[in-house]
Order: sequence, then structure tokens, then C-alpha cells
Amino acid sequence: MPGGRAESTAPEAWNLSFMTLQWVGDIDGSLHILDQTLLPERQQQRILERPSDVIEAIQQLAVRGAPAIGVAAAYGLCLASRGCEQIEQVRARWDAALIPMRQARPTAVNLQHMVDRMNRVATSPAAAELDGVSLRVRLLEEARAIEAQDQHFCRAIGVAGADLIPEGATVLTHCNAGALATAGQGTALSVLYQAWRNGKRFRVLADETRPLLQGSRLTAWELQKSGIPVDVICDGAAGSFFQAGEIDLVITGSDRIAANGDAANKIGTYTIASLARAHEVPFYIAAPSSTFDLNIDSGSEIPIEQRSTAEIWSLTGQKKPLEGIGYRNPAFDVTPASHIAGWITELGILQPPFEEIRR
Amino acid sequence: MPGGRAESTAPEAWNLSFMTLQWVGDIDGSLHILDQTLLPERQQQRILERPSDVIEAIQQLAVRGAPAIGVAAAYGLCLASRGCEQIEQVRARWDAALIPMRQARPTAVNLQHMVDRMNRVATSPAAAELDGVSLRVRLLEEARAIEAQDQHFCRAIGVAGADLIPEGATVLTHCNAGALATAGQGTALSVLYQAWRNGKRFRVLADETRPLLQGSRLTAWELQKSGIPVDVICDGAAGSFFQAGEIDLVITGSDRIAANGDAANKIGTYTIASLARAHEVPFYIAAPSSTFDLNIDSGSEIPIEQRSTAEIWSLTGQKKPLEGIGYRNPAFDVTPASHIAGWITELGILQPPFEEIRR
Repeated sequence: MPGGRAESTAPEAWNLSFMTLQWVGDIDGSLHILDQTLLPERQQQRILERPSDVIEAIQQLAVRGAPAIGVAAAYGLCLASRGCEQIEQVRARWDAALIPMRQARPTAVNLQHMVDRMNRVATSPAAAELDGVSLRVRLLEEARAIEAQDQHFCRAIGVAGADLIPEGATVLTHCNAGALATAGQGTALSVLYQAWRNGKRFRVLADETRPLLQGSRLTAWELQKSGIPVDVICDGAAGSFFQAGEIDLVITGSDRIAANGDAANKIGTYTIASLARAHEVPFYIAAPSSTFDLNIDSGSEIPIEQRSTAEIWSLTGQKKPLEGIGYRNPAFDVTPASHIAGWITELGILQPPFEEIRR
Repeated sequence: MPGGRAESTAPEAWNLSFMTLQWVGDIDGSLHILDQTLLPERQQQRILERPSDVIEAIQQLAVRGAPAIGVAAAYGLCLASRGCEQIEQVRARWDAALIPMRQARPTAVNLQHMVDRMNRVATSPAAAELDGVSLRVRLLEEARAIEAQDQHFCRAIGVAGADLIPEGATVLTHCNAGALATAGQGTALSVLYQAWRNGKRFRVLADETRPLLQGSRLTAWELQKSGIPVDVICDGAAGSFFQAGEIDLVITGSDRIAANGDAANKIGTYTIASLARAHEVPFYIAAPSSTFDLNIDSGSEIPIEQRSTAEIWSLTGQKKPLEGIGYRNPAFDVTPASHIAGWITELGILQPPFEEIRR
């Protein structure tokens, strides 16, 4: 795309050369995911055939990003009764899969929301009338609807936020909130994709995002494929780029947003939000309404996943941690609403208390 | 040391189980350094026999830390005339080595200060009377004096700053400003070592310090050897620990301090200084007077080394960068004096305009 202007291209025509996840087949089908642990070196699919495969893929971050794991979990539940025809068996397998799937990771609320939505269908009065195969058809339909909705929301987030990007700007992002994090074209990166389609020209700084390097491995790879110029920087370097006045705007995704607007996102997000505030640079969150958890008042109620410390010490190929040294590896942090200029959703750019979502 | 109290231990008795650098032999001797690129996996010496060996070791960060490279450069100049006896040859070799050694790395001013100090001896009226071997003896004496002074200054910095550490505190540090960064017991870490010897008990959070991981590879290793509890965190995680109120104090080293107090240090230092300011946590710089560059008014005049982008993209074993993706790798940033609570030196805890150093 660089050099060309693409105002006339419809959002629908923004074709990505990869599929983050895809259900292949009918009710006895399987979920194919792009294994993100192997990117960018290898673009390889992993085929998931059981709910436990999906849970494992979610926990390993082979599929990741709050919206994407919501969609993956919905399909993952459909895998529970793969090959079953008897309604009792379908229900028993469903019930067994439900809680482990809902608890695969604790921080992103989309996972819980989508599992609950699938379960509302499974336990609805209408479903009580169905035989095993018909119930499975209905559940797969719901998972497909969740996927389609996520794609639609991604596009709408892009449209809602695109005008925020100044011509010639440098935009900082953290972790990956792109097509790889959703079933569609992303959240934070959807805003950039839409702005680019609208003819805006800008460049992106991508924090590498230790420990798992979603910025350098995923965001940089994804932006490069779409032709948007991107430079990778080490996380700690962000401060010096703010100080030099090189950053005009920050956009990240989120894994859970409380009723007051506090937003959990990948560890390191609060650090850049704090830098943005100190340098009077606007910091935006982009997320679908399914990321909002209006049952909790503030970010202090968001559970923060503590992940294996091996993600820190194994970096340079070490086989075990150094004896006598501790490691601490919180996977998320919470950016207070006071640091956030706007919450870009499929319903527009919102502010607390998010009445548009409560409706 | 954990569990024991060591108030009665003299500073001189704080024996480290490693030597960062050591001149071995007489005027035809060589400089032995602990190769820090191999730590913590391997504790292996590298023997440097020519000025170019020293320059290479400095550029590769096999020996690193502003004070240590100043001492290494002084000895490195002594290697220029290794094996020479004729004064003409000694002087010719000296002159050829001088500029390349002074320019081995641009940011730390200690390197330039120590090269200049050595050259003042070489070009002094007294030196003009000397034959080749006598001049070499005099120059090696000066390098040894520089090393001894660095060791003395390190201890004095520790004594000057030790009372700043509150009992039970958590202290954040960035990069490595320890024994591995000096000929002595460090600068920032010397303060911690002295506080520990004085009976204070506390713990340290060490930023891993991307790209070259001096925090997780060097600071954690060094603190663990001395028995001070240390947890390694990813650089981006620092914000969440500040937010949680877990950090009581920050101390780092510095590579160059301008007349107004602005301090260059490893990339990422400004990010944590900015976080410290936002959370009202005191941030201290610890450095010997040789790190002060009172010829420059402010940090904007400090040259910032831009290092190979391979330090970023080669992390996970990649052989080349991804095509179409940029990388930016400034090795240092500048923390403005406004963010610094005090400058801990061998002359005490100073404030700009640093009259004590000008004297």
C-alpha cells in the first residue's frame, strides 16, 4: 500500500494474507489457528479438535488477544461434543467443558462473556426442545455469529477511531491488538488500518513487549504485511521517544475495562500510559463492548494473571533460572481511567460511565 | 550474608568472588577482564594484549560500565607499547592508540577523562625526560592509580549514600552499576552493599534492561553472590510495581552528568525516572566525580550512542531482521535534573551546580 492512496477501498476489501482462526467443516469440523508462538519465523496452522486443545492453545498464547480468545473459546465449546449424536452425551460433554474453558485465562473478560453467551444458548428454553445434532448445529451457529460480530466490531472500531490519527503522526502501540488478536482486523490496529485506507500517512512505533515479544514478533509482522511503516523499540526506550517529542498518539487494546474506565492490558501498558500523561500525549484504548466488565467498579477488581517466570529467564536459551534469584512476571497491568483520553469501541469513542454499552 | 548482620565488617573486607578487570604482570603484562557477554552462564576471563583488544572488548560490552571502561582504557593505552624499549617507538604507539581509545564509545565521559588524564602524564614536562621503559613504568603507575582511585571512590559513594536506604525498603535499579561496572564495588550497588553491611535489610527489584539484559544477567548475578535478595522484572513491568506502592527508592548509575545535573544512563532509565516522579518516589544517581562533564551545560549536549539493531531482532535466535520492519536502538537516554533527588558521589550527596567537584 505505501505510495498508493486507497480511499476508495471498502473496509471489506482489506484482505489479510493470514487467518488468525477459522472453523473448518460442519459440526464435526475443527478449529484451525495460526500458531502465534511460531511467528514471525514460521506461519504454521495448528488444528484443534478438543476443548482441551483450545484451552492449551489459549494458555500457551498460540491464540491470544482478548477478542480472539473469546471467539476461540466459543468454537472450543463446539468441539466438546464432536462426533456425538445423543442429546445426553452432548449435554454431558458441554457441561464438562464449560468451566475449564471459562477459566483458561483470568484477565480478559471477553472469554467469560463468550462462554456465558454460548451457555445461554445451550440452556435456553428453545434449546431444551432440540435433539443432540440440532443443538450442536445451533451452538455452531452461535459461535459463527460471535466470530462475525467480532469482525464487524473490529471494522466499526476502525471507523470510529480513524480520524484521531493526525496526518504525518507517529503512533506508539504496545503488545498486539491487531488482526492476530481478533477474528477481524483488530482493535487498536484496526484504527490504524482504517486511517491508512482513508489516505492518512503515518508511522508506528511498536514496543517489543517483553516477555513474550508480541510487539516485535506480531505487531511489526502484521503492520509490515499491510504496508504501514513500523519501527520496533525496546520497552524501556519508549520514554526517550516521548521525551524527544516523537510520539503524537498512543493506542493499545485492552483485556478488561471496568465501569469507571480503568483498563487492564498487557504488562507495560501502564508504563507507557504514565509516560504519555507526563508528556501530554493522548492515550487511547480500542476495544469492543465485549471487553467491558460493567459489573466491576474499578480496575482493582480485575484479576491479574501471574505467568511462569520462565518467560523471563529462558530468554537467552537458559535451561533453568539462576539459583538465588527471584523473578516476577505479572502478565497485565491496569491503566487508570484518568490516563485514558477515550475508549474507542464499535459504538463510537466513549467516556465513562459508558451508557451506550449499558443500553 | 542473609540472616547475619555485618556492621563490624570493614568496607575493605567486602570480598567479591570475581574480578571485573585486573592488570597481570609488569609493563609487559596484559589486562584480564571477566567477559561480561558470557555472564551469567559462564564466568570466563578474556586476556587483552593490544589496545585494539581493549577497544573491541569495550565496544562489545565485554567490559562495560562508565567507571570500568575508564580504567580499562587507561590500561589499554599501556598495552600500546608492549614490548617496546625505544622512546620514539613508545611515543609513536601511544599517539596512534590515543584517539581510537578515546572514541571507543561516545556516551560515557569517564573514558575520555581517563584517556586525557593518561595523556597529560605522557605529555608532561617530567615525561619528556624519560626513556622508553621509564615512561612506560610511569604510565602503568598512572593506570594503577586510576584503578585504585576508582576502588576508593566506589567505597566512598557507598558510604555517602547508605543512609538513604530505608530499613525494609524495596529498591529499584536499572542496568548494572555494580562491581561489574567499576574496578571497585560499584556505584549504585555500592550504596546497597554499604547499607547491607551497616545492617539494613531490604530487597532489590532489577529491571532486566533490554536489549542487552545487564539487569537480569549482571545485576541479579552480582547481588545474588552478595546475598542481597533480588527479583528480576521486565522493563515494562516497572510501572505496575510503582503503582502498587512496592518501590520506595530508585538508584541507578550514570554515564555522563552535565553541569545542570542532567544524567545520561542506560536506555530505559528516563522511563523509570518518569515513573518515579509520577509516583513521588525518590530517584538517585550514584556516580564518581569522573562521570561529571561540567563542560556541557545540559543533557542535550550528551552524544547518545546508537547501537546495532541486531541487539533487538536477534533476541530469539533470528539470523536476520524481518524485511520491511525498522528497529531503533538508542543505547542511552538522558534523565533531566528535575527528576533526580540527589547525585551520590565520593564527595557526598551533591546538588547542581556541583561546586564540590569544580574545586
